[in-house]
Amino acid sequence: MIAVLKQGTTLQQRQSLIEWFKTMGLDVHVSEGKYHVILGLIGDTSRIDVEMLESLSIVESVKRISEPFKNANRKFHEEDSIIDIAGVKLGGGHFQIIAGPCSVESRDQIISVAKSVQASGATLLRGGAFKPRTSPYDFQGLKADGLELLLEAKRETGLPIVSEIMSAEDLDLFADVDVVQVGARNMQNFDLLKALGRTDKVVLIKRGLANTLKELLMSVEYVMAGGNERVILCERGIRTFETYTRNTLDLSAVPMLHELTHLPIVVDPSHATGISRMVEPMAMAAAACGADGLMIEVHNDPMHALCDGAQSLTPEQFDHVAKRVAKIREALQ
Amino acid sequence: MIAVLKQGTTLQQRQSLIEWFKTMGLDVHVSEGKYHVILGLIGDTSRIDVEMLESLSIVESVKRISEPFKNANRKFHEEDSIIDIAGVKLGGGHFQIIAGPCSVESRDQIISVAKSVQASGATLLRGGAFKPRTSPYDFQGLKADGLELLLEAKRETGLPIVSEIMSAEDLDLFADVDVVQVGARNMQNFDLLKALGRTDKVVLIKRGLANTLKELLMSVEYVMAGGNERVILCERGIRTFETYTRNTLDLSAVPMLHELTHLPIVVDPSHATGISRMVEPMAMAAAACGADGLMIEVHNDPMHALCDGAQSLTPEQFDHVAKRVAKIREALQ
Amino acid sequence: MIAVLKQGTTLQQRQSLIEWFKTMGLDVHVSEGKYHVILGLIGDTSRIDVEMLESLSIVESVKRISEPFKNANRKFHEEDSIIDIAGVKLGGGHFQIIAGPCSVESRDQIISVAKSVQASGATLLRGGAFKPRTSPYDFQGLKADGLELLLEAKRETGLPIVSEIMSAEDLDLFADVDVVQVGARNMQNFDLLKALGRTDKVVLIKRGLANTLKELLMSVEYVMAGGNERVILCERGIRTFETYTRNTLDLSAVPMLHELTHLPIVVDPSHATGISRMVEPMAMAAAACGADGLMIEVHNDPMHALCDGAQSLTPEQFDHVAKRVAKIREALQ
Amino acid sequence: MIAVLKQGTTLQQRQSLIEWFKTMGLDVHVSEGKYHVILGLIGDTSRIDVEMLESLSIVESVKRISEPFKNANRKFHEEDSIIDIAGVKLGGGHFQIIAGPCSVESRDQIISVAKSVQASGATLLRGGAFKPRTSPYDFQGLKADGLELLLEAKRETGLPIVSEIMSAEDLDLFADVDVVQVGARNMQNFDLLKALGRTDKVVLIKRGLANTLKELLMSVEYVMAGGNERVILCERGIRTFETYTRNTLDLSAVPMLHELTHLPIVVDPSHATGISRMVEPMAMAAAACGADGLMIEVHNDPMHALCDGAQSLTPEQFDHVAKRVAKIREALQ
Repeated sequence: MIAVLKQGTTLQQRQSLIEWFKTMGLDVHVSEGKYHVILGLIGDTSRIDVEMLESLSIVESVKRISEPFKNANRKFHEEDSIIDIAGVKLGGGHFQIIAGPCSVESRDQIISVAKSVQASGATLLRGGAFKPRTSPYDFQGLKADGLELLLEAKRETGLPIVSEIMSAEDLDLFADVDVVQVGARNMQNFDLLKALGRTDKVVLIKRGLANTLKELLMSVEYVMAGGNERVILCERGIRTFETYTRNTLDLSAVPMLHELTHLPIVVDPSHATGISRMVEPMAMAAAACGADGLMIEVHNDPMHALCDGAQSLTPEQFDHVAKRVAKIREALQ
Repeated sequence: MIAVLKQGTTLQQRQSLIEWFKTMGLDVHVSEGKYHVILGLIGDTSRIDVEMLESLSIVESVKRISEPFKNANRKFHEEDSIIDIAGVKLGGGHFQIIAGPCSVESRDQIISVAKSVQASGATLLRGGAFKPRTSPYDFQGLKADGLELLLEAKRETGLPIVSEIMSAEDLDLFADVDVVQVGARNMQNFDLLKALGRTDKVVLIKRGLANTLKELLMSVEYVMAGGNERVILCERGIRTFETYTRNTLDLSAVPMLHELTHLPIVVDPSHATGISRMVEPMAMAAAACGADGLMIEVHNDPMHALCDGAQSLTPEQFDHVAKRVAKIREALQ
Repeated sequence: MIAVLKQGTTLQQRQSLIEWFKTMGLDVHVSEGKYHVILGLIGDTSRIDVEMLESLSIVESVKRISEPFKNANRKFHEEDSIIDIAGVKLGGGHFQIIAGPCSVESRDQIISVAKSVQASGATLLRGGAFKPRTSPYDFQGLKADGLELLLEAKRETGLPIVSEIMSAEDLDLFADVDVVQVGARNMQNFDLLKALGRTDKVVLIKRGLANTLKELLMSVEYVMAGGNERVILCERGIRTFETYTRNTLDLSAVPMLHELTHLPIVVDPSHATGISRMVEPMAMAAAACGADGLMIEVHNDPMHALCDGAQSLTPEQFDHVAKRVAKIREALQ
Repeated sequence: MIAVLKQGTTLQQRQSLIEWFKTMGLDVHVSEGKYHVILGLIGDTSRIDVEMLESLSIVESVKRISEPFKNANRKFHEEDSIIDIAGVKLGGGHFQIIAGPCSVESRDQIISVAKSVQASGATLLRGGAFKPRTSPYDFQGLKADGLELLLEAKRETGLPIVSEIMSAEDLDLFADVDVVQVGARNMQNFDLLKALGRTDKVVLIKRGLANTLKELLMSVEYVMAGGNERVILCERGIRTFETYTRNTLDLSAVPMLHELTHLPIVVDPSHATGISRMVEPMAMAAAACGADGLMIEVHNDPMHALCDGAQSLTPEQFDHVAKRVAKIREALQ
């Protein structure tokens, strides 16, 4: 870490700061420029609070040289992590499609969707039971009953299941859920992340709507610091000024995260665009730039079936997308 | 609510949609334009999910006419709400300053700061015990011990206290805390908001870093829908591309929120700018545009005292700011 | 267009507004709801200024139903436009790669790069002569001399050339340039766009750093309204909060623009990411989601050759990328 | 400037880079850390292209220590610049209000507005003759005729005038205009800025919608580097995700720019919010945080007069705002 001191800093002020760094166990290397003095801090700087340091009146600016994330960092773990989800491998060349409805609505719905997506090549089943909604007046999900129906679909098809958790208090209900999803709005719900770090569940963390990749990796670090190393990252679109699409899918996040971390990265084109017509091209693009998997919404209810433009695909549309994605995967070999 | 149908929508598709609206208890008014058919929906549309509707293939676009928030809406509650916090009134012309350290660190620190800010005119004491930090390796607060010290400062000075909660599981610890704060990162932690809606605590909700005012008001609605009407809103800066300041204080939020809601709005210039030199001008600007209160960081620890540029003010600096703000308040009379 | 009037609007105010619309040649359809009156405006509303209308005190909100762009609109021109650039076709299934150095630096450089990219499959040569730089102290390009060198490379290889213009005053210098590029910072330099609309040049318009697709299409409309219909759109990354990449490539813009307009869309992965390692995956993703072409930086100078991580690719790297992209294109058939 | 080299950089690569810096006239100070080598560059680094440097494969990151702007920099010019505009002083304690209509529409309109704003205390008259509009189908201004009318209002009232230029080709028309305004969309139209740098006009530069303060100062630098030191900066709102207001007024830009530069800063609350009701509170807030002036839209046409909610104020409303702002100014003494 480098700290640049302001012009006019007194020797005494500088010395106080250096001594404080030494109490933090750091070596300090002083370099005097024409206008500025630069302090190079050597040792474990991960405990240094950059914002606090920058706020000091004698400090012009601070620059981290090492990344503040460790467990997720590829520098210390060169090989791709492969996550085993009840026998289904994800990452390190193992590409998987997670598919299913936005919300679990009924026994028939979830089992029917599960069977059809499985037939088209999906290897994991998703379904929302706890739904984070901007409005308290919107449907909040079937909760425990929804999870129960999802488990029934798992028993029926053998597909491991993925579902979102909203509070650590519900953890017991997720005992048989294979992948516990942390939604974009909870990406920095640190108490929830800590609780998941104390479990042995596979955790899928979605990037927050206005969060950077570094912040996403720091949230991953909350889980891993607790001892749980089975984490999957998910890019699902960020908030930008564009309004034709619901969010903006940041696909450069895929190769960039592959550089930064050894953990697998999946892409959710359904939420990112909010438009079913966009799912196919964006799923193909995600596969083409190296995503380890896709998360795609598929439904079979009549209201949506009437209208092919919903965010969710019909089973027939999903089958088509899965085939097109497979072609892209082949081209990459 | 208005739904514009796409060109080429068949009569049968249109009829299906109209019937579905009727099952939702809405009257539908059809207006045929040259290219488009427009459906006007009359009745309680707050349960209609705009995103779902927009995603239908026959729907070109949807427009809400009424706001989706109700309890917080000034249209249904014309007078300013005045929140009584252990005898200290906020809102409706009652202006208050909440001051105190970012984190509670020791008995001496919190009591010393409390006394000095009280002497300068602060009427509420803030202090963090649970600290949401981007990194799991940063200081996470003194937690229960911190709250205990804060309560001691309250007993010593009589100042009502404000502190941040991060999980509903900690609610018991906040029994004697006067104002429970929900931080920016938890603004859409809906389970936490619901839990606070079931209490009789005053709740202060900070706007999320990339959230709109409508989303803030919908989060307020989560608390109010549970029966708790004592909510304070806080503007604390939003994320923009500017890097000289930590965040960008959105002061137009103050008069805009005053139009939209009857609840009081306070402004936190310390977090918004991250620079102590900016606290005075932004506190004055906030007062000038009608904020109901300010939330300002004040510290007395030696590391910061050395350096007058920290985000926190020294007690002397705070005293100066409080006097300048009082001048602005007088000019408004 | 729909205008929703505020509650409390008097009959007289409403009537004044309706009469004003009639003087603009519009029919007005009045629909009275429970709380609001809605005016449906029928006729050519493209001359109505939405911002002005929204600012009126009796107007709650305004909604355009038709898009404000016409010449570029696919609704009025269903087939893909194919742009003929000195015999090279772009759009409607014709995929092309534009390659070349960021700046033209010398005769040897531009001719050497031109020959190597041509050998690898590029069909258009790019090279900057006028360089828009944030700082007046940065290199501003070789200007007229740079264009001269570029023309020499064109004569040598037969490749049509693409170069950026910064001011209408320089138009004469671009007489033999095949594609005139408008950079991101000039996307809303309306005088420049109007001047290009009066020429018969092919114009390539890059999306501004914080501009929406609608704004991009309105800028295109400035050129087309002048009578020049040969316009190419270019997605080159938008500004977001992410800092690991220079900008964020918005690939969902590709299928979305294909829906909205009949004009071809190319993608520039070099500027979007600012990192040469990201060019290959993002070029592949762009091809996979249906881009009509790519624009890629290739250099051969020793400073960059030393360092394989520059934004620009070496000729060898470009050859590899072009082959990988071709594989993706095959998979799409 | 500091450049941090990547782990694994060879001695030879390092040496090549150091030699290249030396050819740029810089001294290089090498500091070897545990994992990284840091190069400190001493001398005039303003000509070093940070983006190019960062893109090199052996470079981990680069950090400027000195600001890249010079002429505008307060470090080299400690006292506030006071700009004399035909006898009206702005900056360094001289506070002025610029008022007038968005567009010049007729002789009667501009003279009537000019007289009324002068009576209320405005000291400069604004009026748009060349209007940058997103759509080519929107009103583009009266152009030369508009400037002529504005000059007539100047002769009638003695108020110096402010009007926007869109192209250097129109400079002759601005011969008698006192302040030439560069709009937000042209903030990075570098050819226009250079042309203005060669004149002796006072130039008012508006911050672009998604531009940082550093970029604004670099655009100022384009004008000043040409020899024209009479520049005024204008904060007029930036693009954020908030939709209740048209843009988000960034008032912390005012004290921050005062730190960074000696040039005066005015605030335009009319464009920033797009809502006349917000002009008063935001004008007061701007005055309270130290703005050197305000730019406010005032109209007198019947369509707007009917509707008090337009972005523009009526002369009566402006009179009220001017009085309230004066109260705030007094409180600051």
